[in-house]
Amino acid sequence: MNYTISGLPERAVKPRDTGITMVMDKGLSLREAENFIEVAGVYTDLVKLGWGTSYVTPNLDKKIQIYKDAGLPVYFGGTLFEVFVARGQFDDYCRLLDKYKLEIAEVSDGSITIPHEEKCNYINKLSKQVTVISEVGSKDITKIFAPYKWITLMSAELEAGSWKLIAESRESGNVGIYRDSGEVRQGLVDEILTKIPADKIIWEAPHKSQQAWFIKLIGANVSLGNIATTDVIPLETLRLGIRSDTFDHFLEV
Amino acid sequence: MNYTISGLPERAVKPRDTGITMVMDKGLSLREAENFIEVAGVYTDLVKLGWGTSYVTPNLDKKIQIYKDAGLPVYFGGTLFEVFVARGQFDDYCRLLDKYKLEIAEVSDGSITIPHEEKCNYINKLSKQVTVISEVGSKDITKIFAPYKWITLMSAELEAGSWKLIAESRESGNVGIYRDSGEVRQGLVDEILTKIPADKIIWEAPHKSQQAWFIKLIGANVSLGNIATTDVIPLETLRLGIRSDTFDHFLEV
Amino acid sequence: MNYTISGLPERAVKPRDTGITMVMDKGLSLREAENFIEVAGVYTDLVKLGWGTSYVTPNLDKKIQIYKDAGLPVYFGGTLFEVFVARGQFDDYCRLLDKYKLEIAEVSDGSITIPHEEKCNYINKLSKQVTVISEVGSKDITKIFAPYKWITLMSAELEAGSWKLIAESRESGNVGIYRDSGEVRQGLVDEILTKIPADKIIWEAPHKSQQAWFIKLIGANVSLGNIATTDVIPLETLRLGIRSDTFDHFLEV
Repeated sequence: MNYTISGLPERAVKPRDTGITMVMDKGLSLREAENFIEVAGVYTDLVKLGWGTSYVTPNLDKKIQIYKDAGLPVYFGGTLFEVFVARGQFDDYCRLLDKYKLEIAEVSDGSITIPHEEKCNYINKLSKQVTVISEVGSKDITKIFAPYKWITLMSAELEAGSWKLIAESRESGNVGIYRDSGEVRQGLVDEILTKIPADKIIWEAPHKSQQAWFIKLIGANVSLGNIATTDVIPLETLRLGIRSDTFDHFLEV
Repeated sequence: MNYTISGLPERAVKPRDTGITMVMDKGLSLREAENFIEVAGVYTDLVKLGWGTSYVTPNLDKKIQIYKDAGLPVYFGGTLFEVFVARGQFDDYCRLLDKYKLEIAEVSDGSITIPHEEKCNYINKLSKQVTVISEVGSKDITKIFAPYKWITLMSAELEAGSWKLIAESRESGNVGIYRDSGEVRQGLVDEILTKIPADKIIWEAPHKSQQAWFIKLIGANVSLGNIATTDVIPLETLRLGIRSDTFDHFLEV
Repeated sequence: MNYTISGLPERAVKPRDTGITMVMDKGLSLREAENFIEVAGVYTDLVKLGWGTSYVTPNLDKKIQIYKDAGLPVYFGGTLFEVFVARGQFDDYCRLLDKYKLEIAEVSDGSITIPHEEKCNYINKLSKQVTVISEVGSKDITKIFAPYKWITLMSAELEAGSWKLIAESRESGNVGIYRDSGEVRQGLVDEILTKIPADKIIWEAPHKSQQAWFIKLIGANVSLGNIATTDVIPLETLRLGIRSDTFDHFLEV
């Protein structure tokens, strides 16, 4: 840090198992990826190449290399997994992970409907090849699960081999654990946390109010995802209570 | 493309007459323009220097050159045309296009009120010097035209010499073909398409939901405009159905 | 300027005492700061390193130097002042300003509650070391002051040694002088202006509609703050009436 402020919450250090910041790259150029790393690399734990952007982004090889050189694990968004599965190309997907030497894969069913046992089979198979992050929750605004359902799905996916669970919000932050308005479904989150260890969940939280909410509930070292590349520094200040939204919370500690 | 996915819609290739992506540059630096071109140049067909930004942007000569070197046609936003016309400086405007060796000009009446015949005269005059894109629809939220009026205006402008028509939305996406909320005026669009060929229209669609809506209505190769430089890669994934919003649409094809 | 347009409003030139544009840097990388300066440096008067971002931004020394080399005064956001004061570290804060050779400091009480006399004492002390900008208005959406209170606070802070007053809006533009919806509290602004000279106030105005509103009320050379780095060029076009939102206003002049 650049100077000393007393009484700030302690932050987990890399390699972090809690307090993870997962960032979404929606199509940065190589130089933009370098800019991002310069300023936010030290606070970033995972880089997701959002949905199918890796298919159309030029210089994909080089970009992945830039992230690897900076010690930042990269993975493809879950929607890409679904694109392959929906076309019966799961084996191609496994080869793709090999081709780019990726060490993490996301398994999700936000856009396709598959029996949960089948999803768990994918998790299980992929967990033999890479570290698996699996996402729970639909991207469909009309599909709302009861809390017990979230817990059942999450437990089964951990058992099947997931390293971490991602609680869906989309890039827009208005489905899954959020209401259409972007507000957190607080009762749902509370109930999930009675059964699933907090350090197993990465909460997608693209908006500042959502990030602040989770930091106040779970602490500076809550794991958050779908963070915009330009929001990593602002998020770090929220975690430390040096931005207005969490200022009081950490003063009272 | 970086790898193979089966069953994706086919995309028009450059130089495109359909499936055009028109991007708005609101004041990029030279290096930012280069970054944008690196990652999105191949998916971009037209670059608009938004409204009067070209007046105040330093290094305008160099920026235009960077775009030209990348094979990307550049033009000034229609509001700049109106700024000159409102001051009786139309001839200066024609000289300005020459000075910067621009090959496209936009004619619009979103901020000024001129008789439509006069607008068509401008289109006609400019079409002898450059390729003309003309914009239909007011930037004034209170000016709502009936569909037959849109069709009359559009037909006359094509006849006067416009290469393409732009359906107004502003950068904010909440006027013209959209309601104040940003929602598409679906009946209007349907009716326009009964009389004006789809490949003659570039729909301004700054928001993801608007882009997805037009892609589902008209297909992967709909022409869309006012796309932010950082949204070209995401838009390309929408066109291909590898993002959640259009995932189902292209699977069902 | 790149070409000639007749009848545009005259803009103040640097060093500006009116028509100030204060920009918020929320964590740019060094190269991004350079990009920003290339395109917007000439239109920027003050750079604020937002709230506590300077604590976590790598290469802080170099970034401050880049801004100084471009002739752009840099200062820490007011929340950082409050972070130190809330921990009884005011003297450390003064030393910090020295360490980075900053010539401006912001004094605010948006996140902490301190008696106004105490705030004025801080303004007075700091004004002996640096130029002081003080901010009036709470970041708390529920704390709404009556206009006479704003005027009393502002007058006292000018007397205590503030060079300029900042009217609070947050980065989000929905508190202080704005309603929750982002709309300007017009009666408040009008009343403030009956007692406090317009050239003493920098209005935080992160949204385009807010910027246009103040430009129409006070003119091209109103001082505006919390401008995003990418919005400086667009703001400059609003000031000159070469964007739709202020097009008519300056034509009528």
